[in-house]
Amino acid sequence: MNLIEGILYTGIFVFAATGALKARTHQMDIFGAMVVAFATAYGGGTIRDLLIGVRPVNWVNDYLALGLVVSAVLIIFLLKTNLARFRRTLFFTDAIGLGMFTAGGIERSLAYGINEGYAVIMGVMSATFGGLIADMICGEVPNLLKKGELYATACAIGAVIYILLKKAGLEYNLGLFICVVIIVGIRIFSKRKRVHLPEI
Amino acid sequence: MNLIEGILYTGIFVFAATGALKARTHQMDIFGAMVVAFATAYGGGTIRDLLIGVRPVNWVNDYLALGLVVSAVLIIFLLKTNLARFRRTLFFTDAIGLGMFTAGGIERSLAYGINEGYAVIMGVMSATFGGLIADMICGEVPNLLKKGELYATACAIGAVIYILLKKAGLEYNLGLFICVVIIVGIRIFSKRKRVHLPEI
Amino acid sequence: MNLIEGILYTGIFVFAATGALKARTHQMDIFGAMVVAFATAYGGGTIRDLLIGVRPVNWVNDYLALGLVVSAVLIIFLLKTNLARFRRTLFFTDAIGLGMFTAGGIERSLAYGINEGYAVIMGVMSATFGGLIADMICGEVPNLLKKGELYATACAIGAVIYILLKKAGLEYNLGLFICVVIIVGIRIFSKRKRVHLPEI
Repeated sequence: MNLIEGILYTGIFVFAATGALKARTHQMDIFGAMVVAFATAYGGGTIRDLLIGVRPVNWVNDYLALGLVVSAVLIIFLLKTNLARFRRTLFFTDAIGLGMFTAGGIERSLAYGINEGYAVIMGVMSATFGGLIADMICGEVPNLLKKGELYATACAIGAVIYILLKKAGLEYNLGLFICVVIIVGIRIFSKRKRVHLPEI
Repeated sequence: MNLIEGILYTGIFVFAATGALKARTHQMDIFGAMVVAFATAYGGGTIRDLLIGVRPVNWVNDYLALGLVVSAVLIIFLLKTNLARFRRTLFFTDAIGLGMFTAGGIERSLAYGINEGYAVIMGVMSATFGGLIADMICGEVPNLLKKGELYATACAIGAVIYILLKKAGLEYNLGLFICVVIIVGIRIFSKRKRVHLPEI
Repeated sequence: MNLIEGILYTGIFVFAATGALKARTHQMDIFGAMVVAFATAYGGGTIRDLLIGVRPVNWVNDYLALGLVVSAVLIIFLLKTNLARFRRTLFFTDAIGLGMFTAGGIERSLAYGINEGYAVIMGVMSATFGGLIADMICGEVPNLLKKGELYATACAIGAVIYILLKKAGLEYNLGLFICVVIIVGIRIFSKRKRVHLPEI
């Protein structure tokens, strides 16, 4: 496992833990938490793969995916913590995960013949639609779509810059790094300055 | 762009605008409005393509689809109108769109080897399930399923007649025209006479 | 139609009837009831087929599926009964259906090259995610995920034992029978003893 994989798995773990916590607010049992955690961590990539036509979808047959989600749920279950203490760490890890999932979603889409505009869209969906599905399962209007901090917008800006750098011939790891830095930066900026998109 | 394409794009535009207005009632931002508008306009065709196995789904790689949705959302955003003035126009355009999406969904299903009974079902889903998905995203019980004006039923009747005319050898454009007229007629009839399906 | 098919169709019929009753609690019309009934009966298999990449999904082109759902909805509609009298019968038929859908989902997944761990997951999803989708359509937090009787857990235990028996070389019909018996047994045990999974 190299550094990039390590960071990626940490991101997936944090997404799953976020899902497990959301399940807790809805009086779910541990099975329900697994479903919501899985949806949060892998839902975005699943939607992407269904839409672009990858079969089977990315996580099927992948025991590591299952292990990450199950261990995230068990840790949330055992610690009975609401993770408020770790809020800052979670914020950063989530933002780094967003960047990596966005870039990964773009690469996968391009590899399956999707054009650049839609690869950007698929990158944003890969990173953000897991939370949307989790919210839908929990019967909530998805946070992603409501007025608030820049979240999908951060991914979209990172995604466009990633594609431009790639076209300019930049090496993969460097492009990924810049994409992550931009998304983390916009997330922090949006939180601090209370910047948000206008309401429709 | 010929006449039929022009009518079709108008229908898609109106579906997207309807979605953007729904997003407004849920305090979404402009990104949320894009998602709900896209789901309203293209959700039905997406479900159909996923179920019958077309890869990628119809709108992927299509910049015109994106342009129609984005411009519908921007116009709703800029005009800050609730379109109540245009209620009658919207009703007709929506009904014409229903007819065209139903016929289009049938043709696409038949082209992929779906039998005639399920092509009717896929035609109805193509036309109506975008609104269902948009309602689900917004956390509402879908209007489509509740007692009210004939909507899916209008599509189903139009779809059956379309298939019968096609089997009788009628030319495509004429069949499409008749399907649209029937659906618009049933929609008007149902609204005027307050006809609806019985409750379960 | 042999005995196994007869039992399977009874299970599907009961799932569809359950969906139609759920639609009634949400003031849906008869079209809405068809959609919710279809989702309850075939939603789990649809999700499985989409994820593992079977095209088209299992029920497309199958008039028997349509007939089972339509007749279940019509019977619920005509009888205007809430089936409370049949509660015990429904409980058993539902549990038998769970067992058959679990085993069927596993077989289908293995046939499409899914590994054994994920075949267990797909078996459980085949049996239980129809109800989850129906709840989502109705805007409810899915019962499946909330603290309560063992339901998905019963399927998961039955699924693991089914796979183990299959690896041990047991004949298909016997394995299916044991899987069903185990799931029915756990369902009864859980109901009587009020056993449930811990909350997250």
